Amino acid sequence: MIYADNAATTKMSEAAFNTMTSVMNEIWGNPSSLYAHGQKAKDVLENSREEIARLIGADPREIVFTSGGSEADNQAILSAAETGRKKGKTHIVSSAFEHHAVLHTLQRLEKEGFSVTLLDVHENGIVLPEEVEAAVREDTCLVTIMYANNEIGTIQPIKEIGEICRKKSVIFHTDAVQAIGHIPVNVKDDNIDMLSASAHKFHGPKGVGFLYVRKGISLTNLIEGGAQERGYRAGTENVPGIAAMATALKESISKTDENRCRLAAARDRLIEGLRQIPHSALNGDAENRLPGNVNFCFEGIEGESLLLLLDDKGICASSGSACTSGSLDPSHVLLAIGRVHDVAHGSMRLSLGEDITEEQVDYIIKSVKEVVDHLRGFSPIWRDLISGKRKFIL
Amino acid sequence: MIYADNAATTKMSEAAFNTMTSVMNEIWGNPSSLYAHGQKAKDVLENSREEIARLIGADPREIVFTSGGSEADNQAILSAAETGRKKGKTHIVSSAFEHHAVLHTLQRLEKEGFSVTLLDVHENGIVLPEEVEAAVREDTCLVTIMYANNEIGTIQPIKEIGEICRKKSVIFHTDAVQAIGHIPVNVKDDNIDMLSASAHKFHGPKGVGFLYVRKGISLTNLIEGGAQERGYRAGTENVPGIAAMATALKESISKTDENRCRLAAARDRLIEGLRQIPHSALNGDAENRLPGNVNFCFEGIEGESLLLLLDDKGICASSGSACTSGSLDPSHVLLAIGRVHDVAHGSMRLSLGEDITEEQVDYIIKSVKEVVDHLRGFSPIWRDLISGKRKFIL
Repeated sequence: MIYADNAATTKMSEAAFNTMTSVMNEIWGNPSSLYAHGQKAKDVLENSREEIARLIGADPREIVFTSGGSEADNQAILSAAETGRKKGKTHIVSSAFEHHAVLHTLQRLEKEGFSVTLLDVHENGIVLPEEVEAAVREDTCLVTIMYANNEIGTIQPIKEIGEICRKKSVIFHTDAVQAIGHIPVNVKDDNIDMLSASAHKFHGPKGVGFLYVRKGISLTNLIEGGAQERGYRAGTENVPGIAAMATALKESISKTDENRCRLAAARDRLIEGLRQIPHSALNGDAENRLPGNVNFCFEGIEGESLLLLLDDKGICASSGSACTSGSLDPSHVLLAIGRVHDVAHGSMRLSLGEDITEEQVDYIIKSVKEVVDHLRGFSPIWRDLISGKRKFIL
Repeated sequence: MIYADNAATTKMSEAAFNTMTSVMNEIWGNPSSLYAHGQKAKDVLENSREEIARLIGADPREIVFTSGGSEADNQAILSAAETGRKKGKTHIVSSAFEHHAVLHTLQRLEKEGFSVTLLDVHENGIVLPEEVEAAVREDTCLVTIMYANNEIGTIQPIKEIGEICRKKSVIFHTDAVQAIGHIPVNVKDDNIDMLSASAHKFHGPKGVGFLYVRKGISLTNLIEGGAQERGYRAGTENVPGIAAMATALKESISKTDENRCRLAAARDRLIEGLRQIPHSALNGDAENRLPGNVNFCFEGIEGESLLLLLDDKGICASSGSACTSGSLDPSHVLLAIGRVHDVAHGSMRLSLGEDITEEQVDYIIKSVKEVVDHLRGFSPIWRDLISGKRKFIL
């Protein structure tokens, strides 16, 4: 199996797995308990918090552990909205291709009277800082722009956007679920006020993530109850998961530079190979993109069939994000970069892992070519395209 | 170490641990992915859902996986409130000694205009069904009463309360975090509309739980985003944790009858032994209580010191719940059953595990006696009590 869907989830690293199992076996007490067995768990919890904080340039008190990226996104946005509401500021700036954890939370706020400006992400899938600046109003309480897009992997000018927000005294949140552990992220350098992350995207366990909240920013609970996480997130802490997340993040970041170059080379080889397929196109900017992300459209075919046939060839790929794979709607991300419905439907995301080899890349290229040819062979749309009844777009 | 704090958290069972690690190692795909590796994870997810549903008498479609009991409590209560609000019904009935995940959520709703009736739990720590019936009004949208109390272990007349709610067409939620896996729970027999559970309380992993929601009851998202959990709970599913929860629940329930008798015998031996300590009292009903729960007050001492000295003797116990152990306030549960502040401060909870032996029980009795004597030896309150300056309450 060539697993090329690391944006959907990653396999736990051996180190993270070992941390997880040893904490589950040995340090399984409740960190809120006073006896030594509980306090050992508390130590693991706080050491993990320090490690994670250090790795992103934060203070340990600025880290709140959550059940994952979606929870962190929800809490960040609702908190900033709550703060805004109290000051009569009910406008939010975001982008059209955010993750649904952001977009659906914004839709909920719209129902409560907030107004939301979704910025254009242009053909290359990148938000322009000057457009953020122009969109911020007197009553803007939050700018939320993802660090890197989950489908097309485009990296946003986060530092510049953060600078604008700092200057305008508007809270800046970034969903960094796809970025953390894959490219350098430093909350101080990047002028970030709030940041969401999810462990299973960087070889940590599923069901755990964190929210960075800069000192001085108010937080509203999403989950009320006990006084865990300094009162900001109730529920017994998932200590084994949190410890494994810290291990995975440390490992991912320590490898980042090395991985980035290797991965980016594999990605570019893959992009070059796929470009040879007629009437195909790379989605999103070729330069400012995650080192492992390749996202292509192929005219005249249907993405889902493409994936199923690639699966038969032992290749795991996706169309759209895993979170919406049950849906028949075309990807909102591809529509946001201007792809028309038909073309957006013929899309495929390959998100490579660090262990990818050149041979595997070449095998993927060969397999995609074969499958695209095969599918076009009995596609009525393709027939119309080559007969001239329908005009090629790509 | 004698671990007698199973109400705070439990050690994962070997079977649950093995399920967790094998899923992490082998079936780590994203269950929303279309390829076989993802669909295997989907199968594990859905098999776990079926298993859990079967074990509590529910339909698989009535189970929503969450990050734990607190999240489930929050979502259940906010959902029922949302449904009520739409019908102009903004009154909620609960009890004075619910878990903070319930009480704090109710406080939030009070700020939004809801009115809440907290029923008395009386000296024995049990809510009276007739008082539930009397409290339900025309505008009541929800009754939420815990199945068994987390501190004093008293089991509530859930079936009767459920019957009243069904008759009055009011949604009935129960926080069953302490009950599930320890005593028989069947949502159909018990007339339950919504139920919260947490895996780490029945030898499953931390960071995972579930919410049972009877068909026909509307659910509001706490976490917005992807379409996981039929759209009711966003975020990549914690498949290894969910699978391990199913294993743990199956195992706990299969052992329940056998355990209950053994555990209840150990509990009663412990209660008898501790009753020999002068000026002490069992908190909560002696009959209707969880098989492993013992909660005592000792006049003239301070619970925290008691715990720390017991820890020195290798015994893990708690005062109040782990969730509030950092707090200096006396337990709201003990205040609710009529204990005065001073007495409530001198409390201790022992929650026994199924592996407890008679010898261990006797060692606990001997140790508690020694520590209570020791602490009373230099307690100014105790001096006042024995000199007659202050009157004994117990």
